[in-house]
Amino acid sequence: MAPAKSATRQMKLALHIHATGHHVAAWHHPRSQIDAGSNPRHYIEMAQLAERGKFDLIFLADSLAIRLGDVKAKGRWPQYLAYFEPLTLLSTLAAATSRIGLVATASTSYTEPYNLARSFGSLDHLSAGRAGWNIVTTGNAASSRNFGRPEHFEHEDRYRRAQEFVEIVCGLWDSYDDDAFVMDRASGLYADLDKMHVLHHEGESFSVEGPLNMRRPPQGRPVLFQAGTSETGKETAARNADVVFMQQQSLERCRSLREDIRGRLPKHGRDPDEILVMPGMAVTVGRTEAEAREQHDFLQSKIHPDVGRAILSAELGYIDLPEMPLDEPFPLDLIPEIDGGVRSTAQALRRVVEAERPTVRELYQRYANGRGSHQIVGDAVQVADELEHWFRSGAGDGFIIQPAVLPGGLEDFVELVVPELQRRGLYREEYEGATLRDHLGLARPESRYARPALQDAN
Amino acid sequence: MAPAKSATRQMKLALHIHATGHHVAAWHHPRSQIDAGSNPRHYIEMAQLAERGKFDLIFLADSLAIRLGDVKAKGRWPQYLAYFEPLTLLSTLAAATSRIGLVATASTSYTEPYNLARSFGSLDHLSAGRAGWNIVTTGNAASSRNFGRPEHFEHEDRYRRAQEFVEIVCGLWDSYDDDAFVMDRASGLYADLDKMHVLHHEGESFSVEGPLNMRRPPQGRPVLFQAGTSETGKETAARNADVVFMQQQSLERCRSLREDIRGRLPKHGRDPDEILVMPGMAVTVGRTEAEAREQHDFLQSKIHPDVGRAILSAELGYIDLPEMPLDEPFPLDLIPEIDGGVRSTAQALRRVVEAERPTVRELYQRYANGRGSHQIVGDAVQVADELEHWFRSGAGDGFIIQPAVLPGGLEDFVELVVPELQRRGLYREEYEGATLRDHLGLARPESRYARPALQDAN
Repeated sequence: MAPAKSATRQMKLALHIHATGHHVAAWHHPRSQIDAGSNPRHYIEMAQLAERGKFDLIFLADSLAIRLGDVKAKGRWPQYLAYFEPLTLLSTLAAATSRIGLVATASTSYTEPYNLARSFGSLDHLSAGRAGWNIVTTGNAASSRNFGRPEHFEHEDRYRRAQEFVEIVCGLWDSYDDDAFVMDRASGLYADLDKMHVLHHEGESFSVEGPLNMRRPPQGRPVLFQAGTSETGKETAARNADVVFMQQQSLERCRSLREDIRGRLPKHGRDPDEILVMPGMAVTVGRTEAEAREQHDFLQSKIHPDVGRAILSAELGYIDLPEMPLDEPFPLDLIPEIDGGVRSTAQALRRVVEAERPTVRELYQRYANGRGSHQIVGDAVQVADELEHWFRSGAGDGFIIQPAVLPGGLEDFVELVVPELQRRGLYREEYEGATLRDHLGLARPESRYARPALQDAN
Repeated sequence: MAPAKSATRQMKLALHIHATGHHVAAWHHPRSQIDAGSNPRHYIEMAQLAERGKFDLIFLADSLAIRLGDVKAKGRWPQYLAYFEPLTLLSTLAAATSRIGLVATASTSYTEPYNLARSFGSLDHLSAGRAGWNIVTTGNAASSRNFGRPEHFEHEDRYRRAQEFVEIVCGLWDSYDDDAFVMDRASGLYADLDKMHVLHHEGESFSVEGPLNMRRPPQGRPVLFQAGTSETGKETAARNADVVFMQQQSLERCRSLREDIRGRLPKHGRDPDEILVMPGMAVTVGRTEAEAREQHDFLQSKIHPDVGRAILSAELGYIDLPEMPLDEPFPLDLIPEIDGGVRSTAQALRRVVEAERPTVRELYQRYANGRGSHQIVGDAVQVADELEHWFRSGAGDGFIIQPAVLPGGLEDFVELVVPELQRRGLYREEYEGATLRDHLGLARPESRYARPALQDAN
């Protein structure tokens, strides 16, 4: 018999929606939506399906440029060539769904805090409390050239600027107390402006007066997500984030990173349980293991060598790589020396090459699906076993599911894996509440202007 | 008998949605949605009703700050205190409607062209070709303080910057030719990057490399709207705009402004018929004239004197006004001297005071509904008569309808006025096409990279 549900800690699931799917050759597969990047119906149907599968949230990555390093490869690899702007897309999905969380990536590097606070606050109102912001800093030259900055910000500068940016945005969301809008026709008072707060922020990178022209968001603060496993990234996450995403191929590394991040919370006055850590999982599931394997092998066979090289170049920091024989070992000396732990993807790749000496083809196939995430290929029981093992081992509070092919891989996951996880008592059968914070078990934050003494008196 | 519809030029209608309504006391009326600023259902239902009424488009104004000059008045006047960010709101409405155009105001002063091109391009994809951008420059100190700029841009600087901004955005929308995405699984080619164009913009205010990471919008270019009746404003409109909005109380002034603007098009290589001029109309309609008058009088009676003074202050450029006896003439010497025709609203107010010597109360009541727009209060025949008269006199190609109370005033307009206009053959009975350009009779622009020689050969 399944254990009593209430006694079992359950895993959280995020759906990472990524155009035709997370495998670089996904668009070759007949169960991918080939025109995904400009087809709103594709996203609406996936969001509705994920909601039927009781996913906590859908998540959209983002990029502020097309990197043209290898145009030859790009024409064969649709990722990031052309797609929707995330906030507008999620606002459309808000109208087409009622429960699932809606999380978009947005950079602190090339936008204004006032504009960003408005957009995410507005999404939270439009969705009745389902918005989340994945905070990223942007550090590539291609993006900076789209925003009139010949040099991009340095790593530490970006994070310092991001910290100030986040504090401004959170402050702007508290511009009105929850009960500021009295709307009393009898007295003629619409809003009690004693309950409006002006931010008066004057800082190193920004000066923002406020207040924000918006009622406090339904969640008080949209849920804050962060990725990044650099020292600065982890520290910033421990200060700000409600949820941390990571893409790692090793259970042990996820487990230790989760412990590391949780351990940093107390010094910021936070309880370790106030943060959720969710590794990415590149899942390919079939009715049988053979069916899953067949789909996976089909995709691996469709990777053009130019695309394979482009993937490895991206992992190594968009360096130029020469054409190489595909079935000979990847030359270790092509991996650049890394300074100071900044580029964690390149470090991970170096570890793989040193330990296993893969051929060029083996190496790019390893990164072709979900990039740096752990891959699972199998039937429903095998996938559920693996997720359960990672979950019970403390490698994550839940997972970001990255289907190889979309919408096909999502259809399979909802039909096959979700019921298996539910049967084991590891996953919800119905949403516990209405907001994304409810789903994730996160409290609604008090306003920074809340007066505890007065509240005690109530 | 009604004349043959195809032979009659028909008027265009835009619905200006403005929270509880266009009268400053609208929220007092029982047929206003009192929590409009944070209620998505209010907007969804209005958009759907306007679509049933065959409106060409809905239009959202915007502001980038709460002006706190008179907090006492503000608490009694919800306008712009708290509301949705327009792009996210329209993206929600895109999912809830299928034909009506979706037009948002966005400023060129405090955002980046790359971000704006993405958001409006995305809305055009999400709505299958129904997006429009109302181009504004922002020139008030309250806004500039939310964006770290102690001094706001000067009038001419703002327009020069806006012109460069618009050219960049339009260039970015042409980043891919319409047929760039071949998506051919057999050859393995997803996109033909010979049909991708890099902007390489280096200008006075901006440097933007491109390309935009988005397919060309369905309309080629979202429809461009502009307001402003200053010399620079008219010149900029003649260069860029597909539609010009204006708020004027006199038919004769609308007629001459329309002629003025149309006359400027040829020197930019454009035909005068390529631009539509649409004055605002603050309409209050009832089943009888008495019913309309009763609603209007109720609203006028609910204007608090603090709000009345705040309205006049806004028309005069947010100057401080003292408390004044309400039933004595408005003192002419409180109107500031105007330099160089910049603030056209103050000029208009001066003309009214000089000609009619209204009391303080009469003056603020005159600006309490739809601000500077012409007001119509009457039954369906009276409203239709007035719209028809303005239309046939050449004062507009159509009108922006600004109901005093929302949603009540929209319900009345769709139920009463729309059938009357249709009966006269002055207004469509069904949408002619699918996109906003179709509704407005505007051609889909060619890409700037189109090669005429090759096209002639086809």
